[in-house]
Amino acid sequence: MVIDKLLEKIIELKNPSVVGLDPKLDFVPAHILKEMFEAHGGHNSKAAAEAILKFNMEIIDEIYDIVPAVKPQVAMYEMFGPDGFGAYLKTVEYAKSKGMFVIVDVKRGDIASTGEAYAKAFLGKVKIGDEENTVFDADFATINPYLGQDSIEPFIDECKANDKGLFILVKTSNAGSGMLQDILSDGKPIYEIVGSYVESWGAEMRGKHGFSPIGAVVGATHKEQAKRLREIMPHTFMLVPGYGAQGGTAEDLSVCFNSEGLGAIVNSSRGIIAAYKNKYKNDFTPQEHGKAARAAAIEMRDDIMGHIK
Amino acid sequence: MVIDKLLEKIIELKNPSVVGLDPKLDFVPAHILKEMFEAHGGHNSKAAAEAILKFNMEIIDEIYDIVPAVKPQVAMYEMFGPDGFGAYLKTVEYAKSKGMFVIVDVKRGDIASTGEAYAKAFLGKVKIGDEENTVFDADFATINPYLGQDSIEPFIDECKANDKGLFILVKTSNAGSGMLQDILSDGKPIYEIVGSYVESWGAEMRGKHGFSPIGAVVGATHKEQAKRLREIMPHTFMLVPGYGAQGGTAEDLSVCFNSEGLGAIVNSSRGIIAAYKNKYKNDFTPQEHGKAARAAAIEMRDDIMGHIK
Repeated sequence: MVIDKLLEKIIELKNPSVVGLDPKLDFVPAHILKEMFEAHGGHNSKAAAEAILKFNMEIIDEIYDIVPAVKPQVAMYEMFGPDGFGAYLKTVEYAKSKGMFVIVDVKRGDIASTGEAYAKAFLGKVKIGDEENTVFDADFATINPYLGQDSIEPFIDECKANDKGLFILVKTSNAGSGMLQDILSDGKPIYEIVGSYVESWGAEMRGKHGFSPIGAVVGATHKEQAKRLREIMPHTFMLVPGYGAQGGTAEDLSVCFNSEGLGAIVNSSRGIIAAYKNKYKNDFTPQEHGKAARAAAIEMRDDIMGHIK
Repeated sequence: MVIDKLLEKIIELKNPSVVGLDPKLDFVPAHILKEMFEAHGGHNSKAAAEAILKFNMEIIDEIYDIVPAVKPQVAMYEMFGPDGFGAYLKTVEYAKSKGMFVIVDVKRGDIASTGEAYAKAFLGKVKIGDEENTVFDADFATINPYLGQDSIEPFIDECKANDKGLFILVKTSNAGSGMLQDILSDGKPIYEIVGSYVESWGAEMRGKHGFSPIGAVVGATHKEQAKRLREIMPHTFMLVPGYGAQGGTAEDLSVCFNSEGLGAIVNSSRGIIAAYKNKYKNDFTPQEHGKAARAAAIEMRDDIMGHIK
């Protein structure tokens, strides 16, 4: 089961973290941009797409042996249109070819017939005439629960059919997440109610480490809420955004892990992929941005491992 | 202001409806599929993308003079990867070239920095080097509110900067929408709370017909809820899915309109674009699928207009 395989990789690498591949063009070193602008005839979407793909591949080359997974954020690719979407697909394929797990951060959610189309695209197979092929073939996808259970079911069906997993938004990392997620109903916040549903949806799919592939997104920026969610979702694996650039600390997110040191995978995006121009700007050149990402990934790993059991 | 322009088009055509361009391959006539499979070397994503694009263009050609807007559902395109995303872009461009308003049904929603990328892609301009260009340049986009106000703001910013609009999910048309949207807080359901926010976000942007470009999605399948939402969101223009194939009737959704007969645009997808193989299968050939769509669009228009003021 995919969740067991991910957990085994986390245990093997001693690293419960995931690198968010959210390549804003500002993060891409000037020499890569220059090369692609020249190769593709100017400041166009093809050049931008090729630049972020090369940037990603150079990062993946430097981290695949120490980091179990990547989480590319599709918005940063869709903004370059079909070429950008092509770079998204190639990024997923390249990360998988290097043995990494891929979480497509797409936050989709729609009525059942539409959800089925998304689920087949990202986690299943798409039928064209008499051929049925994978499109993205990711390992996990992020999903938005606002439309309710019937909008989630097509994704769960694809998880069962193809050994894939989900991370359903429960409590997001942004400062404004409380507007809707913290509304109280009979004293219970919405995120707890959604969390209970997520726990129940995965109940019949638990793997050998006790976790199901129907996971939850729980922001590192909300320690008390995360602690409560770990209690009410004991078998739900968590994807934890908000570490680093967004302000969440290893101490804050340590509550997402159980007494065996398992239960979550922590994301950092900017903090890793743009390390060469921020934290490590005096230590690495732009040509060495991948090595800077590796150094930042190791520092993050050690920070998290130092705070969990 | 875009909302005024849309209302004027609705008034001019006497038609408050929108055709959902959700071209499942099953809906595309066999002769178009055959042509594209032959032209593109088999049952591949390029052929599928070209088939749905041709299908869409033939529908747009037959309806652009009587229907004010189209709403392409991006899931049906993304499932064919980058080629499908290209067909999405070309569908948007073609509908705009024919003078139709375009609502991109993407239901995006993410933390602010990511939301900004989506907002610029669908409603604004994307900067590459020293060039800034539109990507989709749609008129309206659908948005999911689960992440809260700071996730919506980047979209509102792009609406203000580029004269665009939004439809924020408030009460969706699916049967399971109540799981989260109907949860009560102090006696008030979540969808009313979200509806009040949507009304307030548009408060300073009202056009000459009294509506703001910050609209709401309100399903035709929930008459009482829609009636209540019309009361608490008097200046919020509504996108109303769920008519026809999903079970909502013109009588049900008439509550979304005000005493001047304005206030909403009603979507039908399958009921229009697949009319040639369902309702009108004895009246039109597959070659005439566009004319069948036109006949179904006229029938829908007359049904709705017969039930509103």
